[in-house]
Order: sequence, then C-alpha cells, then structure tokens
Amino acid sequence: MRALTVTPGTRDSLRLDPDFPEPDEREGGLLVEAVAVGVCGTDREIIAADYGEAPPGDDRLVLGHESLGRVVEDPTGQFKWGDLVAGIVRHPDPVPCANCAAGQWDMCRNGQYTEHGIKGLDGFARDRWRIEPGHAVKLDQTLGLLGVLLEPTSVVAKAWELIDRFVERDPWEPENVLVTGAGPIGLLAALLGKQRGLDVHVLDLATDGPKPQLTHDLGATYHSKPVHELGFAPDLVLECTGAAPVVFGVMDHVGPCGIVCLTGVSTGGHQIPVDAGALNRALVLENNVVFGSVNANARHWKAGADALSSADRKWLTRLITRRVPVEHYAEAYAPPRADDIKVVVEFAER
Amino acid sequence: MRALTVTPGTRDSLRLDPDFPEPDEREGGLLVEAVAVGVCGTDREIIAADYGEAPPGDDRLVLGHESLGRVVEDPTGQFKWGDLVAGIVRHPDPVPCANCAAGQWDMCRNGQYTEHGIKGLDGFARDRWRIEPGHAVKLDQTLGLLGVLLEPTSVVAKAWELIDRFVERDPWEPENVLVTGAGPIGLLAALLGKQRGLDVHVLDLATDGPKPQLTHDLGATYHSKPVHELGFAPDLVLECTGAAPVVFGVMDHVGPCGIVCLTGVSTGGHQIPVDAGALNRALVLENNVVFGSVNANARHWKAGADALSSADRKWLTRLITRRVPVEHYAEAYAPPRADDIKVVVEFAER
Repeated sequence: MRALTVTPGTRDSLRLDPDFPEPDEREGGLLVEAVAVGVCGTDREIIAADYGEAPPGDDRLVLGHESLGRVVEDPTGQFKWGDLVAGIVRHPDPVPCANCAAGQWDMCRNGQYTEHGIKGLDGFARDRWRIEPGHAVKLDQTLGLLGVLLEPTSVVAKAWELIDRFVERDPWEPENVLVTGAGPIGLLAALLGKQRGLDVHVLDLATDGPKPQLTHDLGATYHSKPVHELGFAPDLVLECTGAAPVVFGVMDHVGPCGIVCLTGVSTGGHQIPVDAGALNRALVLENNVVFGSVNANARHWKAGADALSSADRKWLTRLITRRVPVEHYAEAYAPPRADDIKVVVEFAER
Repeated sequence: MRALTVTPGTRDSLRLDPDFPEPDEREGGLLVEAVAVGVCGTDREIIAADYGEAPPGDDRLVLGHESLGRVVEDPTGQFKWGDLVAGIVRHPDPVPCANCAAGQWDMCRNGQYTEHGIKGLDGFARDRWRIEPGHAVKLDQTLGLLGVLLEPTSVVAKAWELIDRFVERDPWEPENVLVTGAGPIGLLAALLGKQRGLDVHVLDLATDGPKPQLTHDLGATYHSKPVHELGFAPDLVLECTGAAPVVFGVMDHVGPCGIVCLTGVSTGGHQIPVDAGALNRALVLENNVVFGSVNANARHWKAGADALSSADRKWLTRLITRRVPVEHYAEAYAPPRADDIKVVVEFAER
C-alpha cells in the first residue's frame, strides 16, 4: 500500500512509498482506510528535519497526524464498517506519569509520550492504518471530508476547556474573546467562541484572501491592526500566532481579570526588548492569567467532534482551501500559499 | 487623638497629627483602639507622592493599611470588648462590578474600589478607628502583636487559594514550591507552603541577616543564586520580588504543568531583552500557567487568620524585626534597613 514517509533527521526525505507494509495488528485492533490527512506546520518542521522521530528500530516515519478514515473492521464491535473516524495523536508511555495515567496525556510531565506521525509512532498518511479502538474518535457521518479538521479542533477544544475552568474562578462572565491569527487554529477557536455565545474578534495581518470574509460569515469582527490599536481590552484572548510581539502585546492589553491562552508554538533564539516590570505589574494588579495549552486528550477530541457536528458545513468547507491527491503530495507539503488555510492530502476519494 | 497623615501628591508630607478628629460613626459601627500598624512599600510610595488618594473632600489621608487593634464597642454584638481584630483594606464601590457584588472585591474590574490608608479611605494609623463589623476580622487572642501580620498573610492566602484552584486542573500533585524573595510576603508564603505539606524552597539575594535562618527554621531550603542555577525545575513558584529578571527567570524555569503566581508589584519604564519566542514556546509546550494576584477578600482574610493561629509564635515573632513607638514614626518609614523584615509602628502598648 501507499504511504508518505520521511527519514527523520534527513532534510527533504519525504516520498510516497508505493509498497509500504500493511499495518501490523500490534498497532491496534481497529483497521481504518484513509480518507485524508491534513497538512500543518509540524509536518513541514519534520520534513525540514527540525523535528520528528521514527518508531524504535526503524529509520523511516509515516507522516500525518491530522487523520480521517473509514472503519474497515473492529473486532471489539464498538465501530461498524464505514464509520468515519480520526485517530488520537498522542499515546502515553507504558510507564505513565500521573497525568498520563489518568488519561490526560496532553499534560504529560515526563515527555515519554509517543505521537502518530511525529514522535516514535507511524502516522496516518497511508492507505490503511490501525489503532486501538479507544484511541479512535467517531465523527458525524455527514461531515465527510470536513472530519479531517478534528485534530486542530481538538487542540482548540482543550484550550477552551481550560479557559472555561479558569473563568469559573470569578463571579463575572466574560463577554468577548480576541483570537489572534486567522489560520485553521484561529478560525476554529473563533468558531468555538461563537458556539459559547461570545462576542468574537479575530486579529490577523491579512487584509485580503479568505480570512476577513470567513470571520465575517461566522458573525465575528475582523481586525487587521496592532493589538494596542484595537480600541478595547478583551476579556479573553486565544493567541494562535506564536509571534513574540503579538504574544506580549495581548498579555499587556487583556482586560482586568483577563485570561490569555497561548497556543502558538514559536521558535526561540531572538531577543526582543520588553518592559518586563510594567508587564509584571499589569498582570499582578489586574489579576490576569496567562497559560499555555498544547495537544488534546480523549475528552477534547470528543468535544471537538461535537463542535464540528454543530458547525455550519458550508463555512467549514471553506476552511479547506486545497485538496491534493496523494500522488501530488509535493504540492501539499511545499511552503504554504498566501491564501491557504487548511490543505489536505486525499487518499481514498480520488 | 493622634494620627499619622499625609497629603497625597505632596512628597514627604507625613506627620503625626496630635489632634486628629475621633472616627466618625459613618465610618462603621465597630470602634477599635489601635495596637499597631505594619509598614510596607506601598506606604513609602504614598509618602513619596507616587500613589495615594485622600477621602473625597479632604486633602489629608490617614496612612496605614496593615492594622491591628482591640475592640472597644460593637453595637451589633458580633465582637466583644478586647477582641483582637484587623480591618479589611479594600471596600467595593457602592455601584459594584460583578466581582465586587459577589464579595470578591480583590478581583474588582472597574477600579472604583476604595482602600483604607491608600485610596479614598482613611487608614488605621490612628489611636482609634471605626469599620463595619463585616469588614473586621477576628484574630486568635494569643497572637498579640503578631496579629499585625494578618494583612500580608491575607495576600498570600489569596495567592495560595488561587494556586490550589489551578492545581485542581491536573491529576498530578505538586510536591515543591519555590518562593522568590524572603521579605514578609515571601516568608509568609513559605509558611503557608509548609502548612500545605510542600517541600519549600526560598530564593533571595541576602546571604546574611535573618532570612537564611528563618527559612531554615521553617524546615525550608534557602538558596542565594540565580533561578537557572537552582538545579531543579520547581512545580510551583510564588514570585514575591517583582524584579523583572526574576519574574522572567521563573516563567522560564518552572517545571512541566507548572504554576507561577506573581505577587510582586514592580515599576515599569525599563526594557530588558527577552527571548520571547522561547518563553512562549516553553509556556505552550509545558502547559504552564502564570497568573497575577493582588489584594484579598474576606475569605482570604479569614484563611490568613487561621494560618497565623496555626503558626509557631516564636518564628512569627522573628518576622517583626523592629517595633517603633508612634512618636518615633519617622524611623519606621525611613528607607528600610538591610536586616528589616517587618517594621511595625505601635500605638497602644507603650
């Protein structure tokens, strides 16, 4: 069968293997036929050899952590033939930390987890894959290809769950949220903000392309200006750019008792001048909370599946700006185009 | 009667007024005879005219927000003659925000609160003061003068309450806490950390004076080195210096799923170089939480009174490094000495 593989540590080693072995039953009892995988920045980091780890004993890694497939067989009977599913990315270490042992592998403290298509486990960019049924999440059948958005949606579902918990601290109810960055994570974060009944604002550099209209059609307000020129202090911020000036800008400009959730994975190595005293003073005197959020556990994957199921299909469809057949994979993993939101690589439905 | 007053906005206007009017009944039904007030950095900021606001219509403000007194009369019968009490500092605005309306005036969102001895309300540095009984907190009689530590203890009780709430997010249990700064707030934060059964570490620049021994006698470990040379990544951090390099150092060095509580009120105006991308990346990938905490509400004042009641009296006594009779007030409010931890101004017991 076909599989998109890389040799971690070797730059630009991505290739379509035509004769990759069928998935081993030890990978899990659930056999799934791939529909598509989503492409994200982590894939490009792996292709650039900045990240990624092959399974133990292998030198090649199957790429793809944003999955969508249809069930072929499930000996446990939890899923039936044709069910639309996605595979949860992270698995806890066999000797789990206290968080992993409780199913919160997204909060793993010892770093010994594995991740499909990223770290020590083959990914989902292959004609067929296997997974334990408990690590597969069923999607609303009517979503079709849109189900490939579940992985990024699970990430924002986790971010929102944590925001909700921190909000419970206070009697006041936040009314608005600022989402910084209108990529797939930002737009899905905005969607879940609207589903919570909030007044949603999205900030992004783009002045043309699909982002302003997608924001508008969600019933949210689009801003293309620096954070300090917004004209209001947001109650909540969901930071999805990872750009240092934006990160520090939102920490400084969030309103009193405000909550900032950081989700953007930035690169380090560059120092910028920060009025650290003023920033600390503002955080203290305003009782602000800033927290980082990464990955997602089963609860968040299920919440993400519910969020997608409730969303407008036409709007979700516009998030997938390019569908690339797996034979033309190189187009999908090339540097993103200006108008790209989510690019997907299609397997089954050619 | 005597009162220590300042003219807010006029530098070095502190004086002991010998004939200040007796407290007005409109200030509250509970009449209290002052025992002592504690001196802190906010008092010195007010004396330096950097901060502070007189009551409406007045140009002078009675100083003192860290109070201790004995009840003289309480028409409501909640307190009896001689009860040891402290007055809660902050009062909500008559038109309260949602947090103030629920009694969480420490989380005030509209800034319209008043504070005894700081903002729009006379303080406690006078022979007698009045307050509403609901805004007075009863102290264990056996504490005597040590009850003057309640205000700073209420601030750390709030910080710990919030840490406890954030800890509930995860299944894992933090085992240690790093407290940065061994002033009164830091040492009281360390005390409450020990009371929670944690392995407590205190970091401070001082290599002599009372701080190392006070830390040791609490059963905690004292460090006098930069955060990155500690040799371990703390589970929790209670930051009490407000010094920008320390603030950013602990954000960077807290362990995975770690929680940093900022309590130090720093001054702004100086930019330092920060690898903001690396800091953001660490916060995100480690699911870290950073939050600011200021002031305290009635629940925290009561928790603080309980914490003091449970503490070793001899250890608490050593936190009060100078007792200055009110006639010599200028010595108390002069720049702090190297060995000062808490300086108190005494009223009644001369």
